[in-house]
Amino acid sequence: MRHSPLNSNPLLIISLTSRPTAVNLFWALDRISRTAEENKVLLAEALEIIAEDKAMCRAIGQHGMALLNENDTILTHCNAGGLATSDYGTALAVMFSAHKAGKQIQVYADETRPLLQGARLTTWELMQAGIDVTLICDNMAAQVMKEGKIQCVIVGADRIAANGDTANKIGTYNVAILAEAHGIPFYVAAPTSTLDFALETGAEIPIEQRAAEEVTKGFGKLTAPEGVKVYSPAFDVTPAALVTAIITEKGIARAPYTENLNALRDS
Amino acid sequence: MRHSPLNSNPLLIISLTSRPTAVNLFWALDRISRTAEENKVLLAEALEIIAEDKAMCRAIGQHGMALLNENDTILTHCNAGGLATSDYGTALAVMFSAHKAGKQIQVYADETRPLLQGARLTTWELMQAGIDVTLICDNMAAQVMKEGKIQCVIVGADRIAANGDTANKIGTYNVAILAEAHGIPFYVAAPTSTLDFALETGAEIPIEQRAAEEVTKGFGKLTAPEGVKVYSPAFDVTPAALVTAIITEKGIARAPYTENLNALRDS
Repeated sequence: MRHSPLNSNPLLIISLTSRPTAVNLFWALDRISRTAEENKVLLAEALEIIAEDKAMCRAIGQHGMALLNENDTILTHCNAGGLATSDYGTALAVMFSAHKAGKQIQVYADETRPLLQGARLTTWELMQAGIDVTLICDNMAAQVMKEGKIQCVIVGADRIAANGDTANKIGTYNVAILAEAHGIPFYVAAPTSTLDFALETGAEIPIEQRAAEEVTKGFGKLTAPEGVKVYSPAFDVTPAALVTAIITEKGIARAPYTENLNALRDS
Repeated sequence: MRHSPLNSNPLLIISLTSRPTAVNLFWALDRISRTAEENKVLLAEALEIIAEDKAMCRAIGQHGMALLNENDTILTHCNAGGLATSDYGTALAVMFSAHKAGKQIQVYADETRPLLQGARLTTWELMQAGIDVTLICDNMAAQVMKEGKIQCVIVGADRIAANGDTANKIGTYNVAILAEAHGIPFYVAAPTSTLDFALETGAEIPIEQRAAEEVTKGFGKLTAPEGVKVYSPAFDVTPAALVTAIITEKGIARAPYTENLNALRDS
């Protein structure tokens, strides 16, 4: 990022260092920062981003719902809904759009340890919308798939490399492997601002490590021995080979991703 | 079970209806019940079971440690240690034996939602024994495997069908699929009393369903919306095709299991 008065703004510095994995946060910060340099009005630019984000969410929903059949049950992981965006979200946009269009759908939501975004946020959003949602622990996903309960998986993304490798909340890669093992399509829903063409593959995406206490004391009381070693990556990278399709606001991309994501971007 | 005065014992009835998936509980109850019928001393029989269980745990440990190489890191799920048996446990027996024999090993323990047996019990047992253990959330297993950190998986079993299909704590089937996807051996450690030759395959094993509150309020406070639907199977069945070997007190069985488990039983 170029030097500007805003670059020394403490809030901006905190935001820039908050989340190494997600790329569209940097995209928005950069856009705001550049606008400030050019002496435009920050508020107007922020409002413009919100309006664009809403339209983008709706477009993702419209493109994605074409992938759903009547009575499909969808598994999702973490939260990629209205609480994470300005409107319908990304993965949840597909469900909201399908529901609004009168399609009968059901959803299973992984609770998403350690921070329980699925249990706390996703189930709440879907219940508010009147969508039939069932909460499961992350480790129940394979059993639910084996029982034939799931027709597809839809998740969001924090960053997508040029080849389609997708960084998302920890556990997404687990779910992608389980989906493949059960012959279930695995869809990623994300705006094209999430595409990072500077990265050839997902191997270059940095993975944020989180504090042990989120795992051992995530619910207000200690649920593991004092001093136990903890490994807690906040994200993982799902190889493009496990991704059936990427749903963006500009349309749906399938393999080969390097070629087809490029084409989408330029469309 | 035949009718006896003990069969109308309320404690026995509770025990018999407590856990549909685990078979060796019924085996012990039946043995105690038959002994009572024959007017033998219950305590003596219980002590005999403990002595046999100890010897069995040690034998599992001895057979299993031959599968470990120096500096191996093992992933385990749930708790199959001394807190679940009379001595070394089953899966953990392999680790305790290897450690005692001077092998350098490390362990990753899945926390095992919803009841956190891995976080609360397994890490504690391994730490007490001076074994290097790291706690992870269940959904981090694939990432840990991808990073090359795991050389094998060892889990216990609640019931093993004649063909090697293995019922164990929910999430075991997830781990088995992830291990297969990463080319990592997946071992089941269990006494031959866990083998249920009356069941041809695991499809016949009943799966206990648990209360929603264990998922939504497992830590003393509500961590999901009031009234959310929850699906909570307590166990899952791992198909024999994903099991590299079954470690018993009589030795190690590999596929074809129907043949080789039979041979083990009769040995």
